[in-house]
Amino acid sequence: MNHRFSDPEIAAVYRAIGERRDMRHFRSDPVDPETLTRLIGAAHLAPSVGYMQPWRFIRIVDPEIRAAIHALAKDEQEKTAEAYGERAETIRKVKLEGIRECGELLVVSLIPDRERYVLGRRTMPEMDICSVACAIQNLWLAARAEGLGVGWVSIFDPDAMAQLLALPQGARPLAVLCLGHVEAFYPEPMLETIGWDKRRDLRTILFHDRWGNEPA
Amino acid sequence: MNHRFSDPEIAAVYRAIGERRDMRHFRSDPVDPETLTRLIGAAHLAPSVGYMQPWRFIRIVDPEIRAAIHALAKDEQEKTAEAYGERAETIRKVKLEGIRECGELLVVSLIPDRERYVLGRRTMPEMDICSVACAIQNLWLAARAEGLGVGWVSIFDPDAMAQLLALPQGARPLAVLCLGHVEAFYPEPMLETIGWDKRRDLRTILFHDRWGNEPA
Repeated sequence: MNHRFSDPEIAAVYRAIGERRDMRHFRSDPVDPETLTRLIGAAHLAPSVGYMQPWRFIRIVDPEIRAAIHALAKDEQEKTAEAYGERAETIRKVKLEGIRECGELLVVSLIPDRERYVLGRRTMPEMDICSVACAIQNLWLAARAEGLGVGWVSIFDPDAMAQLLALPQGARPLAVLCLGHVEAFYPEPMLETIGWDKRRDLRTILFHDRWGNEPA
Repeated sequence: MNHRFSDPEIAAVYRAIGERRDMRHFRSDPVDPETLTRLIGAAHLAPSVGYMQPWRFIRIVDPEIRAAIHALAKDEQEKTAEAYGERAETIRKVKLEGIRECGELLVVSLIPDRERYVLGRRTMPEMDICSVACAIQNLWLAARAEGLGVGWVSIFDPDAMAQLLALPQGARPLAVLCLGHVEAFYPEPMLETIGWDKRRDLRTILFHDRWGNEPA
């Protein structure tokens, strides 16, 4: 039996993968609630280690909490700039207004009490983080197909964020997701456009049998 | 401007998300090399914090190395079973033969020297892990569209794996990926079928403004 999708379906999946961008510029018109539900549903279909489903999504509705999240990000942006020295000005230019402007703001957190999940994690405890990241990638790709942009902001103090959102002891926020309509998707990653770095050649990320052993 | 994909394209993206499975059963016929290159390319289009692209893929070609990876997984499976006590027998039944049977075996690792990447990681160092997980999820969804199964095995000792594959100091393996043709995709997650756990109700993973605050 052939489990291959049709050629147009395959192309659509690759299109979503290729045209997904980490967005920083948003329009502020609202996201349709049914679309939001579909996107959270897509995230919830992600793989998770030991089927632990360690993701929780906090939809920020209160404008004051949104403003407080923006303030946390600005504060950490300045601390990061100071830590970088010569590239400080570039870091100060990374746009965080998306947190204020996007149609929907979501904070994604790990659940507490993860210690009791041992399957696939006894030697690899970070698999819970991997599961949450896979959920976010699902949401991100589905959003791109639906014509919505997503920006994953990790420029914040997780302890301050946990306090702001009353996370229980042991939970840990991993993402502030800006979600919403955009004027245009960037033609290439924004960090490439501003000259921060370039995409590595595909041949340099693939080895055979051992590290550094490039395919013939 | 409307950035929405066409309805059939959107459906294809959701289909890949919904029909992707963590596979443990594989046929052993080979994966077409061009398909493998497309899948690695899809992974490489993932988002990465500070554009660090921290993923490296090691394609296992040598049958002896494949056998050694299988042995590492069996060893850790037994240790996990011992740690679980009453569910030990269930864990011993989790199938790891896919490592021997699948058409392509890949090990995915974090790069070394990640400390020099500070953007988006000063307070959230685990973002490098998130980036690798997003890359794997891209590959996983593209593989499903191409009709190929993927299983993410994290049942191994990462230090022993690092030694086996000559990873440099500071690199860390995150995944053994079994990739290949399958007889059939599971209709639901395998851990649900064997009664390990159930999928949470979507309403229980979404809060408003603060932890535990369920939407009205």
